[in-house]
Amino acid sequence: MSPAGPPATTAVADRPHGPARGLVPRAGRLRADLDHLATLTEPGPGVTRLAFTELERAAHRYAAEQLTALGARVRTDVVGNTIAELPGSVPGAPAIGSGSHLDSVPSGGRFDGIAGVVAAVEVARLLTESGTELRHPYRVVVFAAEEGARFGQACTGSRIVAGLTDSADLDRLTDHEGTTMAEAMRSVGLAPDRAAEARWDPADWLAFLELHIEQGSVLESSDLPLGVVDVISGSTRLEITLSGVASHTGGTPMHLRSDALAAAAELVLAAESLAWDSRHHGTRATVGRLEVLPGALTTIPGTVVLGVDVRDVDSARQRATVREFLDHAAGVAVRRGVGFRHRLLADTSPVVLPAALRAQLVGAAERSGTAYRVMPSGASHDSQMVNRVVPAGMLFVPSRDGLSHTPAEWTSVEQIAEGTAVLAEAVVGMDAAGRLGPESAADGGS
Amino acid sequence: MSPAGPPATTAVADRPHGPARGLVPRAGRLRADLDHLATLTEPGPGVTRLAFTELERAAHRYAAEQLTALGARVRTDVVGNTIAELPGSVPGAPAIGSGSHLDSVPSGGRFDGIAGVVAAVEVARLLTESGTELRHPYRVVVFAAEEGARFGQACTGSRIVAGLTDSADLDRLTDHEGTTMAEAMRSVGLAPDRAAEARWDPADWLAFLELHIEQGSVLESSDLPLGVVDVISGSTRLEITLSGVASHTGGTPMHLRSDALAAAAELVLAAESLAWDSRHHGTRATVGRLEVLPGALTTIPGTVVLGVDVRDVDSARQRATVREFLDHAAGVAVRRGVGFRHRLLADTSPVVLPAALRAQLVGAAERSGTAYRVMPSGASHDSQMVNRVVPAGMLFVPSRDGLSHTPAEWTSVEQIAEGTAVLAEAVVGMDAAGRLGPESAADGGS
Repeated sequence: MSPAGPPATTAVADRPHGPARGLVPRAGRLRADLDHLATLTEPGPGVTRLAFTELERAAHRYAAEQLTALGARVRTDVVGNTIAELPGSVPGAPAIGSGSHLDSVPSGGRFDGIAGVVAAVEVARLLTESGTELRHPYRVVVFAAEEGARFGQACTGSRIVAGLTDSADLDRLTDHEGTTMAEAMRSVGLAPDRAAEARWDPADWLAFLELHIEQGSVLESSDLPLGVVDVISGSTRLEITLSGVASHTGGTPMHLRSDALAAAAELVLAAESLAWDSRHHGTRATVGRLEVLPGALTTIPGTVVLGVDVRDVDSARQRATVREFLDHAAGVAVRRGVGFRHRLLADTSPVVLPAALRAQLVGAAERSGTAYRVMPSGASHDSQMVNRVVPAGMLFVPSRDGLSHTPAEWTSVEQIAEGTAVLAEAVVGMDAAGRLGPESAADGGS
Repeated sequence: MSPAGPPATTAVADRPHGPARGLVPRAGRLRADLDHLATLTEPGPGVTRLAFTELERAAHRYAAEQLTALGARVRTDVVGNTIAELPGSVPGAPAIGSGSHLDSVPSGGRFDGIAGVVAAVEVARLLTESGTELRHPYRVVVFAAEEGARFGQACTGSRIVAGLTDSADLDRLTDHEGTTMAEAMRSVGLAPDRAAEARWDPADWLAFLELHIEQGSVLESSDLPLGVVDVISGSTRLEITLSGVASHTGGTPMHLRSDALAAAAELVLAAESLAWDSRHHGTRATVGRLEVLPGALTTIPGTVVLGVDVRDVDSARQRATVREFLDHAAGVAVRRGVGFRHRLLADTSPVVLPAALRAQLVGAAERSGTAYRVMPSGASHDSQMVNRVVPAGMLFVPSRDGLSHTPAEWTSVEQIAEGTAVLAEAVVGMDAAGRLGPESAADGGS
C-alpha cells in the first residue's frame, strides 16, 4: 500500500463475494426523488438551481430528510456538503462513500449530479430495508456547488474536502454580479471562513463511488447501459475581457471603430479551430458564455466578456491549447486596437482513477450481469477532486442523444436503476473485500 | 410649390432679414436643463432612459414644465409626443417647429436628442423674454421613443405623426422581454390604439428644425462648430436567431456539435467584411446586440439572438448589403447544421432633406457668423420621418471624439449654445421669409 493510500480496515473477514441478493433498486422511488428535485428550480426552461442558493439548500434538505428517515446520522459541513452515515459493524472502520451533487447550470437538466445522489440514497434504502449490515460505514455525500457555471470554478464542495480550495479562494471567486462565493455561502447560512474544517481525513474513508450520467453519446451509440470511468478530462477555464470603444453604429465609419464584438467573434472561431487542429485531436474548446455591453442594436459593442472552456484527457496538450489560444487572442486584440485581459477561472489536470477501484466496479458489473465499457469522462466530476485524498471510482449511465446541461437532458429511470444495482453490488463487494490492492492509492496511476 | 408642400402663409410682410439681435442663448440655462435631465436615469453608467418608460415620461414632464412657465400651451398626444406652442400673430399661420427626443439607449449619453430639446426650449425662452413676436406659431416638439434600442424600431413617435407606424405595428413590435410596444405605452398611460389621432396635418406646419449632436467626428476633425445636414442615412435592422444544440462542453466531441455561437461569430465577421468590401464603400454594418443562451461556461450555446444594423446614404447599396448578408448567413447556418431565421425589425430609406430649408439654415449660420459645413448624417433622426409630411432641416453640433451611445458622449454647453443661436436665427429668419421656395416640398430632392 502506498503512503497516500487509505489505511487497512481493522479486520478483514473472508465473507464470500457474490451478487448482493435482494438489493434491487425500485424505479418508483428513484422517479419520486427525481420528480421532486426537478420542482426545486428557478422559473424558466429546465432546471436552474445554482450553486450556493436557497434552492440548492432545499435540494440538500430533501436528500437529508430521505436519509434521516432511514436512521442515518446526517450533517451538513461548514461549506454546505451534506453527509449521511449508516454505521458499520466494525468499530473504527473507514467508510465507503457514494454520492454526487444537486446544483445545476442555468437551464440545465434534471439528471446531472442528481442521478448520482438519488442512486446513493437508494443504495442506503436497500441496505436498510434488506437488513444488510456492512462492516464499514456507508456514507451518502451530497457535494455543494459542483457546477462552475456561477463562479467559474467547478467542484467547489469536493475541492474543499480535498484541500484544493481554501477560504481565500472563496473570497476571490465572483459570479456575474460581483458576488463573491464567500458572500453567497454566507447568504445561505454557511461559514466560508471555516472551510478548512470541512477537509476530509483520508484515514476515515475506504473509497468514494460516484454514479453520473455520461453527458456524451458513447454509451448510447454502443447500446451499453454502463460505463466504468478510467480517466477524467482536465479543464482550463478562462474569462477574457475585450475593451473597444462604444459608439453610434450610424455615426462611426468602419475605419474608426474599435468593435469589441468583432474581436470576440475571431476568438470564438479561434477556439473552435484550435480544437479541430490535428495537433489537438481530443481537445474540446468552447466559448459558452459571451456578454456584450452595452448590447444595443445601434451601439458598437464597447466591451465583451467571454468564457472559454478547454478540456482534454492529456495534460500537456490541454495547457498547450490554452497557451496557443491566449497568444492568438492577444494578437487579434493588438491588430484590432482592442484592450485584452484574461483571468484564469479554474485549471484542473486530467485524473486517472485508481485501477484497483476500477477493477472493483468492473467486478460488480460482471456479477450483476450488466454490460459495460471502460471509458474516459469529458466532463469534470467531484470524484476527480475526492480522488486527491480518497480513492474514487465512477460509473456512467447513458445520456439520451448525448445531451446534458440542457432541459433536453434525459436518462430513463430504468437506466438509473440498472446503474444503481451495480453501485449497490460494488458497495457490498468492497465492504467484503475490505481493502483495496496496492494500486488503490489516491494518486495511483495519475 | 409642389402638391405635397406646405401651404403658403396667410401674409408675407417684408420684415427685414438679419441677425435676431438679443436672442443670445444662456449657457447656464442649457447646463441646468442638461444636468437635470441626466438625473432621470436607471442606475448604472451613463444615461439609461428607455422608450415608453416612466423615466422617459418624467423627462417629458420636465420639458413641459419649462414651457408651461413661459406661457406656452403644452399637450401630450396619445402616443407620448409632447408639443408646446407659443402663438403667432397671424391667425391660422402654420407653425415653425423645433425639437428632438429625450429617450436614450441603455448606458447612453446625456446629449443625444436631449441637446435638441433643450435648444428648442431655450429658443422659446429667448423669444418670450425678448418680446419677439413671430407671425407663425413656434412649437417645441419632444418626440417619444426615438431610439430603436428597446423595440428595434427607431423614431416611433415621429413615425406615428408622419403616418409611417400605426396601431397594428405597435402591437407587433416587442422588446427583449416580449413586452409589446403597445403594452409598454399603456403602462405609462398612453393610448396606442388611438395612434392615428397623433398624425400631423401638413397644412398646420411650415417647417420642422432639429438640432442634434453629430455622433461622429467630422465636425471635430475639421474644427467646425456646426453642420447643416443634407442627407440622412437609411437603416435596415434585422434580428437573427440561430438555433443549435445546447450540450455539455466536456461531454460533446467537436464533430458532434451544433454550436449557435460559433455560427454567430461567422455572421459578426461577415457583416464587418461586407461593409469593408470596396463595392460597399460608405456602408456601415454592425452587430450591436448578441445574446447567448443558456450562456453558461460549461454549456455549448444552444441559441444565439443577434441584432444587425446596416446604414447607408445610398438606398440601393443598403438593400444589396442586406441581401448579401442574409444569403451568406443562411449558407453558414446550412454548413453548420444550425437553424436560422430572421426578422426585419425596421427598414428606412436614406432621406435627402429639402434644399430650400437647407438654404435657410445656411443663411442663418452665415448671418450668425458661425462657420459650418454641409454634411450627411450617419444616424437616423426624427427629422427623417417628419420630412415625409413637413419639410425638415437639421443642424449638427460637434461630438467629442465622435462618440455617442456611450456614457463618454460629450458636447460642451458652449457648443450647444452656439448651435442654439443659429437655430434661433433660423426660426426668426423663416418666420420673416414666411414661405419656403418651390424646392421645399417635404419630398423634395429625395
